[in-house]
Amino acid sequence: MTQTIAAQATTTATFKSLKCKECGAEYEPKATHVCEFCFGPLEVAYDYDALRRTVTRETIQAGPNSIWRYRPFLPVATNNPIDVGTGMTPLVRANRLARRLGLKKLYIKNDAVNMPTLSFKDRVVSVALTRARELGFSTVSCASTGNLANSTAAIAAHAGLDCCVFIPADLEAGKVLGTLIYGPTVMAVQGNYDQVNRLCCEVANTHGWGFVNINLRPYYSEGSKTLGYEVIEQLGWELPDRIVAPLASGSLFTKIYKGFREFIEVGLVEEKHVRFSGAQAEGCSPIAQAFREERDFIKPVKPSTIAKSIAIGNPADGVYALEIARKTGGNIESVNDAEIVDGIKLLAETEGIFTETAGGTTVAVLKKLVEAGKIDPEETTVVYITGNGLKTQEAVQGYIGEPLTIEPKLESFERALERAQTLDRLEWQQVLV
Amino acid sequence: MTQTIAAQATTTATFKSLKCKECGAEYEPKATHVCEFCFGPLEVAYDYDALRRTVTRETIQAGPNSIWRYRPFLPVATNNPIDVGTGMTPLVRANRLARRLGLKKLYIKNDAVNMPTLSFKDRVVSVALTRARELGFSTVSCASTGNLANSTAAIAAHAGLDCCVFIPADLEAGKVLGTLIYGPTVMAVQGNYDQVNRLCCEVANTHGWGFVNINLRPYYSEGSKTLGYEVIEQLGWELPDRIVAPLASGSLFTKIYKGFREFIEVGLVEEKHVRFSGAQAEGCSPIAQAFREERDFIKPVKPSTIAKSIAIGNPADGVYALEIARKTGGNIESVNDAEIVDGIKLLAETEGIFTETAGGTTVAVLKKLVEAGKIDPEETTVVYITGNGLKTQEAVQGYIGEPLTIEPKLESFERALERAQTLDRLEWQQVLV
Ligand SMILES: [Zn+2]
Ligand SMILES: [Zn+2]
Repeated sequence: MTQTIAAQATTTATFKSLKCKECGAEYEPKATHVCEFCFGPLEVAYDYDALRRTVTRETIQAGPNSIWRYRPFLPVATNNPIDVGTGMTPLVRANRLARRLGLKKLYIKNDAVNMPTLSFKDRVVSVALTRARELGFSTVSCASTGNLANSTAAIAAHAGLDCCVFIPADLEAGKVLGTLIYGPTVMAVQGNYDQVNRLCCEVANTHGWGFVNINLRPYYSEGSKTLGYEVIEQLGWELPDRIVAPLASGSLFTKIYKGFREFIEVGLVEEKHVRFSGAQAEGCSPIAQAFREERDFIKPVKPSTIAKSIAIGNPADGVYALEIARKTGGNIESVNDAEIVDGIKLLAETEGIFTETAGGTTVAVLKKLVEAGKIDPEETTVVYITGNGLKTQEAVQGYIGEPLTIEPKLESFERALERAQTLDRLEWQQVLV
Repeated sequence: MTQTIAAQATTTATFKSLKCKECGAEYEPKATHVCEFCFGPLEVAYDYDALRRTVTRETIQAGPNSIWRYRPFLPVATNNPIDVGTGMTPLVRANRLARRLGLKKLYIKNDAVNMPTLSFKDRVVSVALTRARELGFSTVSCASTGNLANSTAAIAAHAGLDCCVFIPADLEAGKVLGTLIYGPTVMAVQGNYDQVNRLCCEVANTHGWGFVNINLRPYYSEGSKTLGYEVIEQLGWELPDRIVAPLASGSLFTKIYKGFREFIEVGLVEEKHVRFSGAQAEGCSPIAQAFREERDFIKPVKPSTIAKSIAIGNPADGVYALEIARKTGGNIESVNDAEIVDGIKLLAETEGIFTETAGGTTVAVLKKLVEAGKIDPEETTVVYITGNGLKTQEAVQGYIGEPLTIEPKLESFERALERAQTLDRLEWQQVLV
């Protein structure tokens, strides 16, 4: 359970160093995440000249049907990554939702069916654990409130890595079960998420474990770039005009942006102006507030929303997300809990996709932006759905109606059908676009 | 909500007719499923000469990343099928499960992450609803106990088809919620599944609705062939030596077989002997019983098992499944509920895949067959996982341990870790292969 010091040198790595996002100081690509000089976050830097020379659309298409087709753009040196089939989730043309909202060309990027644990976290964890293994870690860990714990436990199990997961003690039973099933050690910490996080930093230092979202964070977060690459490839090697994505720490948003820029930089896709729209829940919307108030700093908030998976009160990459929304001519908007539930239902009823509260937030923000005239109906818009509704069932319970109970007889059925068609005609008309 | 009579004629259909599996009588490819002469089941017949001339590995690979890359082998004429990204689920090399069992080359075909509703039913429903639309149905329906209701409601929503789903009134709340979310009419029938089914047959006749698993069944069931095609393609255009799949009605099993035979027939893959092993839950194992007792007929049983999604007491395609297992040198085996739970845990702990009870049954049968010396360790074996564990959480509750509760302090963590590592060493050693 201890870390061996030296990383294996290989000739296939296309990344060179970790670089401070604030002061530009460079570091060896080890398990570290904060600049020693300015405490800024570290980010992986690549050799784009080498990438331009060696990577083509064809070399990508010849790769596996997973995020690892983009391996040269990911911060691992091995040619044998932990590949559980993560990524390459469907990009669905959403005609019925588009028509309902008054848009022309709308797509859903659906990570609610991501392999193995039904959220985009499988992307970042696949990258983090592959890097953890090549840095010599045998025990991996995370501080999580749900999706991340599921993903770390599952992918560690597949890879045969020891796994210890830290969760707040008051977590929902379903999320605990969805972690325990993979057989990790689960530590339920009697404290809030901040306290859990602080304890994890101590454990990372004293035990030398690889925490995917702490000391491995620079590698981990790069995994989200694949959500940018895949959309480009699935649109036929084109960029969309706009994306709408949820904002938690802000990392996903900035990494989709980085992914787009990288493919332009190495000549895999033609330059195009893409607007970035971010979605937050009103009960935890520090980035949306800063956007609205035209601030360039984030005021931390205390979260209170049903969208728990994106409820980060002090978002680490908030200012970067803010900057991207502004410079691309996008926006950051928030919606309340009732609108989030409506967003979940709207996506399910029009497109047959059942998303968790984070996805409901994103769809509701899309709707709000269109209604406010902030999205041009002619734009090719991609909405990122990041997790599955089966994990947050309690959010919609009580808001989706009831079955019509009947006897096993044709007459009983006919009466019920008439009831459904006449009494609920108003609601039906709303449902059937 | 009524059926227009004539199907659109197109030039791209490669199927000609429906053919009785028993007497060979041929029928127009309409919404019908039983032979008028002998009451045998009808099956879709194709023009294999045309397929051999027009389909190549390259034409398939140039198609969409979904089941619709195999459209010429599916019973629809349209070039614009309902494509929600169903299929092309990961085929994962399962090294850790293989090592635990003593096998050399084991793969998991994972439909637990199928799009949109996390089970193989999305394949059959995508095909059935596409055919329903081209036959002129505007209302689609099904009799279901869970996965099928989820899938029909979701894909109907995407396609904008009216949908009415019939379920038994005592269905689990989670499965009802996972259907209601898509906004169909849900009829909860106060009766057992047989009564639900009988009522649905009446409704199909009187209302002219398209029931995916009744009058559209010949088209519907063809969707399962894609589980055969994809495995061939994902193995690099090779057949495995053995497959292990769950048996409910027996349809999935026979259609994987048909898929393999078709690709051999049209020259897409080299002939190879593939052994077919089927898995049933002991509490509903009429096909396994017939296999063991060397009968060629099925004695219906009354189901009593936690594996509800495969608990069909009188399986329609049971005799065909039996025949395939026998003539390929395979077998049909059953396991009890405790073994099913262990199978779910084994797959999760070794491969990071959380499956429902049907998948637990399949993994447990795999284990039993290997231990009995009935699977050669050198064989390339593919195990079909057909659904997601988030839908049957109650099956494992109480069998997966508890988190270790700690205070947010390093000392408290250290004490708990020691407890985990010493007291549970025996269990740990079992978990860490
Ligand atoms: Zn710095
Ligand atoms: Zn017949």
